[in-house]
Order: sequence, then structure tokens, then C-alpha cells
Amino acid sequence: MTKSRLEAFSDGVIAILITIMVLELRPPVLDTQAHGALLSDLAALGHIFLSYTLSFVFLAIYWNNHHHMFQAIKHVDGTVLWANMHLLFWLSLIPFGTAWMGDTEFARDPVAFYGFLLLMCALAYTVLVMRLIRIHGAGSTFARAIGTDVKGKISLFFYVAGIAVSLLNPAIGFAIYVAVALIWLVPDKRFERELIKASAPTD
Amino acid sequence: MTKSRLEAFSDGVIAILITIMVLELRPPVLDTQAHGALLSDLAALGHIFLSYTLSFVFLAIYWNNHHHMFQAIKHVDGTVLWANMHLLFWLSLIPFGTAWMGDTEFARDPVAFYGFLLLMCALAYTVLVMRLIRIHGAGSTFARAIGTDVKGKISLFFYVAGIAVSLLNPAIGFAIYVAVALIWLVPDKRFERELIKASAPTD
Amino acid sequence: MTKSRLEAFSDGVIAILITIMVLELRPPVLDTQAHGALLSDLAALGHIFLSYTLSFVFLAIYWNNHHHMFQAIKHVDGTVLWANMHLLFWLSLIPFGTAWMGDTEFARDPVAFYGFLLLMCALAYTVLVMRLIRIHGAGSTFARAIGTDVKGKISLFFYVAGIAVSLLNPAIGFAIYVAVALIWLVPDKRFERELIKASAPTD
Amino acid sequence: MTKSRLEAFSDGVIAILITIMVLELRPPVLDTQAHGALLSDLAALGHIFLSYTLSFVFLAIYWNNHHHMFQAIKHVDGTVLWANMHLLFWLSLIPFGTAWMGDTEFARDPVAFYGFLLLMCALAYTVLVMRLIRIHGAGSTFARAIGTDVKGKISLFFYVAGIAVSLLNPAIGFAIYVAVALIWLVPDKRFERELIKASAPTD
Repeated sequence: MTKSRLEAFSDGVIAILITIMVLELRPPVLDTQAHGALLSDLAALGHIFLSYTLSFVFLAIYWNNHHHMFQAIKHVDGTVLWANMHLLFWLSLIPFGTAWMGDTEFARDPVAFYGFLLLMCALAYTVLVMRLIRIHGAGSTFARAIGTDVKGKISLFFYVAGIAVSLLNPAIGFAIYVAVALIWLVPDKRFERELIKASAPTD
Repeated sequence: MTKSRLEAFSDGVIAILITIMVLELRPPVLDTQAHGALLSDLAALGHIFLSYTLSFVFLAIYWNNHHHMFQAIKHVDGTVLWANMHLLFWLSLIPFGTAWMGDTEFARDPVAFYGFLLLMCALAYTVLVMRLIRIHGAGSTFARAIGTDVKGKISLFFYVAGIAVSLLNPAIGFAIYVAVALIWLVPDKRFERELIKASAPTD
Repeated sequence: MTKSRLEAFSDGVIAILITIMVLELRPPVLDTQAHGALLSDLAALGHIFLSYTLSFVFLAIYWNNHHHMFQAIKHVDGTVLWANMHLLFWLSLIPFGTAWMGDTEFARDPVAFYGFLLLMCALAYTVLVMRLIRIHGAGSTFARAIGTDVKGKISLFFYVAGIAVSLLNPAIGFAIYVAVALIWLVPDKRFERELIKASAPTD
Repeated sequence: MTKSRLEAFSDGVIAILITIMVLELRPPVLDTQAHGALLSDLAALGHIFLSYTLSFVFLAIYWNNHHHMFQAIKHVDGTVLWANMHLLFWLSLIPFGTAWMGDTEFARDPVAFYGFLLLMCALAYTVLVMRLIRIHGAGSTFARAIGTDVKGKISLFFYVAGIAVSLLNPAIGFAIYVAVALIWLVPDKRFERELIKASAPTD
């Protein structure tokens, strides 16, 4: 089974998710005293803009990792299609969590809930990776490229920590989510490295 | 006529449908007493979330089956383009039916109407399958892969039953729709099996 | 310059346009007397549903014709990109015209305005066709496939007639637009026929 | 690393952005005196329509230039993916800026803010170009095609001028943005020219 339509569909869904979040960013309402037309009126959108930016970055990270990973794989099967759909389901809830967190100006429960969504996305991604390793074999280029997946494991830990901390102090919880995003912004060289190795002549 | 743009367009429409439904999932409204920022406020979204999830699964099933089916076909013609558009039309009404069912907390008529939409999608899919069989011939790999299409026939029966039962008890009607989704979540091996057979050497 | 990204971008825009129109189709509002949860409440959406359906069909026709036409062409240039963008611009206003026509229950001016949008889309399509003929040459397979373009010319005449009639009687004006859609629902065999001729051995 | 998924994802995001802006174009509200159903009611949408049109043209220009540029490049790496995401981020704010400028009927601050967004998009595009030149080498076909990038430099200057002028007279500021769009509507022949040169036999 070819992987191209799975890639195209995932691209479509992630492109839409990353874009419709901007619909939440409503311009300030103009009243009869011309309030709403000043740069200072944008300040009221600060929390919404900040949560939009973080979610944009997280969805971009997922797309980037998805892209890298599917370059390294050879084929997919029905279970991979569903594992991918499961990932897209949790990603599709990100705009909802983003809007709730922004609307409530980073209140305790919404920030914890946002972390819960990030955690579920990460778990769904892990399930997808495991399915792909199962199909390609533990000794495959793909499995070696994934390796011990330190970043993935650290992320899961940080998400759980972020959720717990949010319940005490949402600002610190939010900072922990930002930290995870920063970890992933460093491009993931694993697949490039292993693909180069795999295509190099054996000595 | 090549099938690739038909696949790309269908991917696009289904990706958008599966994603814009989430716009219906509005965060709780924040009032001056800070209600709307508590996890318990999400409980009010239970029906909307449940109908979103079911529709996500149904659209995912349609995409999966569409993907499997078009891998097995060789070419399309003008009638296939329109049969496919007809399917996309009914699928495009799913977000509307989902919103109505969720908003009314699974009232009688909206649940029956949702079943009607599922039935129309299934009939449109059946018409598409029949057009493709006509083009490829009854003895083709494609026609053999479809076979007697037991799942498809059971689904049509269940949708009709679900609509009828909804008028008496919407909760049971909804449960019947869930049952259809569960039937299809089991990956459809027919095309994979026949494609392997077709590519195997004859003995 | 390859045509594939132009096709992909056009597919994306048309797929989104055809889908976001459904956001206009709002479920009936539920009030405290449980009005809004009855099938009979859908009757109030009749005009909106009808205008949605016609616009879905028109966008599907444009996609179909676009698809057929680009299968027959060999290459594009910068002017084709802009002629295509110009077409997408007018198509992008269809959801607006559709919503206005539906909201006003087919009032005089909105129906005439909808016809104006259809006319502008048709003119933009004609400009695109002319640019493609210029590039490929009057004697090319593509130019022969287009031929005298009787359907296209009839459509332009009908749109103008529909706009004029709408100002007197919007129901008849709307019926004229439906007639144009029906003309185009018959699949366009021109490109298939010419492509088969072009690939056949000369005798 | 192949460029095709990056192109597909960018196509998806730009197609969605160019399309969801039309959701801002709400039909006139129908009141009980049948106001809202007249052509003259569209006059109230003039500013919104004008800002929609300009943003459509700007996004079309970005897509066109992106398309031309990626035809000339051979490969991408992780930094290009992120430079591209950064561009998409600023482009994704265009619908917000468009809505604010239209809603406030081209008030001072919103027009200046819109110019700021255009400037950030142009800077993000410049960063992307620089990354691609770094990868392909200063002597590559790609680098020669970019050349001294006079248009790009003029645009940056015009955006800064437009922002400054907007604070004094938003109408003139807006006219400056329109002038930039007109500069770019002339198709960019650089890549076509250099690609033809590169494929020509050396003498």
C-alpha cells in the first residue's frame, strides 16, 4: 500500500488545523467612540495571540516530524492508516484547547487541559511510530533512525509535569509546554543521518 | 483519464470536512464569576463532543475505504467524477447533521436525520462502486475485491434500522450508528488480498 | 513550467470553497420550548439549502471542467497562473453570493447578483481558455478539443438573460441558472475524444 | 530531502488562507423592512471587499513566487522547512489584519498594522530565499535566478514607507501597498530565464 495519499491527507488536515485557529483571532470590536481601531486595542488579544503562536509551533513540529518520518518508511498498512487517523483526531482538538486557554487568559483548568491534549497527541504519535517499527522490523533503517527516541520520552514526561504544575501555577505549566516546543524546534537529524548511512556503500 | 486529481480533490474535501466540524466545538463562555474556566464546564459539551467523535470516525472510514478502493482501480471516466461528487455532496452535510444532533442533545428528529445522512452517504458510495465495477468489468480484480460486499449491505440495513429506532428511542438509534462504525473500524482486507492475488504468478 | 502545482492549488481552493459553504447551513436554534429539534424546523432552511446545492453543483462543474482541460494541456506560463488566480478570485465570491441569496430567500437583487458572479466566473474561465490556446497554438490538440465551445457561449448568454430576468422575477432567473448547471452536468466528452484521436496512429 | 511535501503543505495553507478570508465578507443583515436585500446594501461592504481583494492579490503573489522559486531549487533541509513555516506563520495573520482594516474602514492604526504584517511576510520570504541560496551555493542556477532581487528590496522599502505614511494618512499608505502589489503582478521572469539558460548547451 502506498504512503502518498496518507501523506497528502495528513498534510491537508494539519494545514487546515494550523490555519483555522486564526479564525479565533477576532479583530477588536469597533464601537461608536472609535475604540477598537487603536494599536493599544490589540493588547486585549495578547493571551489569544500567545496561545495561537504556541499551537502553530506545535502543529508545525508535528508536520515536520511526520514529514521526516514518512520519508524514511517504505510502506504502510491498514493499522498505520488508523494510527495516523488517531493522531489527527487529537491534533484536531488543539484549536479547541487553544481557544479555551486564550479566552480564559490562561486559567488553571484550561492550561492543564491544553497539556492533556498535547500529551494525547504525543501518545498517539508514539503509537504510530510503534506500528511503523513493527511493520518495518526492529533492524530496519527506520527503526534505527527512531533509535531510543530520547526527545519523545522527555516530551511525555514534560507534558505530565506541565499538567501537574498547571494545576498549581498555570504560568509555569505553560512555560513547560513552551520548553517542549523549543526542544523540538531543533531539527531532527536522525532520519537524514540514517538515510545517508543506508544509501552509503557498505565497506 | 487519470485518477490522481480525483483522489487529491476528494482528500481535500474530506480533510476539510473532518476538520471544520471542530469549529462547532466552542469553548465554554467565560462569565464575570469565572464560570467557563473549569474542567466541569466541559461537561456541557459532552453531547457535542460525542457527535463530533462519531462523525470524525465516519469520515475517517469513508476516507479509508475510498483510499483502499482507488488503489485497486485503473482508470476513471466522467460518470465516476460525478458519482464521486455526489458522494462528497452527502458527506459535506455531515457537519450540519453533527451540529444539529449535538446542539439538541440527541433529540429524536436530529438523530433520525443524522442516520438519514449516513444512509445517503452509503447509497452514494454504493453508486460509485457500481460505476467503477461497470468500467472495470465484472471479472476484474476490482470487482472480485468488492465481492458480495456483505459489510456494505449490512450497513445499509443498520442505517435504516437506526433511523426507525431513533424515532422511538434516539439513544438506541445512536448506538446502532456506533455499531456500524465499529464494523468498519476493522480494516478492510479485501483489496489488499485481491491485489496480492492479482500480482502473484498463476500456477 | 509544470502544471502540477497549479492543479494542486486550484484543487485546494475549490475543495475549500465547496466545503466552507456548508458553514452557512446553521442548525435550527433550540429554544426553551424545544422548538428547533423537529424535522419541520428544517423547512426554514429550504432556501439556504437550495442555494447551497446549486453552488455545490456549479463549483463541482468548474472543478470537473478544470480537471478535463488541464489533462489536455502540456505546459503553462506566468500569464496562465494569473488567469487561473483570476478565476479562483471570482469563484471565491460564490459562497458570499450563495449566503446572501439564501438569507434573503431569493430576493430580486441577491439573485441577480448571484448571476453576476456566475457570469464573472464564466468570463474568467474563458480568459483562461484563451490564454491556454494562445500558448498551445490554434492547431493544437488542446485548441481542437475546445473547438467552437458552444456550451460556453450558451452559458454566457444564459447568465446575462438570468440576471435580466431576475430583476423582474427572481424565481425564473434562478431557474435559468439551474438550466445552465444542467447543461454542464452532461459530461464534457470533447477532451477525451480529442486525446484519443491524438494518441491514435495516423492512417 | 524532497521538496514535494513542503510544496503541498504550503499550497494547502495558502489555499486555505486565501479562501477563509471570504468568511469575513458577511452578507448584509436582512431586517423586517427588507433592508439588506438591495444592491445598494453592498456599498456598506466596500471597505471589507477592497481589503479582501488586496489580500487575495498579495497571497496570490506569494503563492506565485513560492511556486516559481521552488521550481528552480533542487533540495531542501530542516532549516528550509522552518524558514518556510515562519513565512506561513506571518501569512496566516493576513486574514486577521485584513478583517481589522476592513472593519475599521481603513483607520490609521489598522492600516499601519496591515503594512507591518506585509513587511514581516516579506522579511520571512527573504530569510527563506537566503537559506535556499546558502544550500545551493552562490554560483548556482538558483542564486543567479534570484540575482540582486531589486523587486524584493523595493518592496521592503515601500512597506516601511507605507507604514510610516499610514500614520499620517491611511489612504495614501494603502495606495502604497497597492503599488507594491502592482509591481509584483508583472510575472517574475527571472527563474524561467535562468532555467532555460541552465538547460541550454554550453558553447
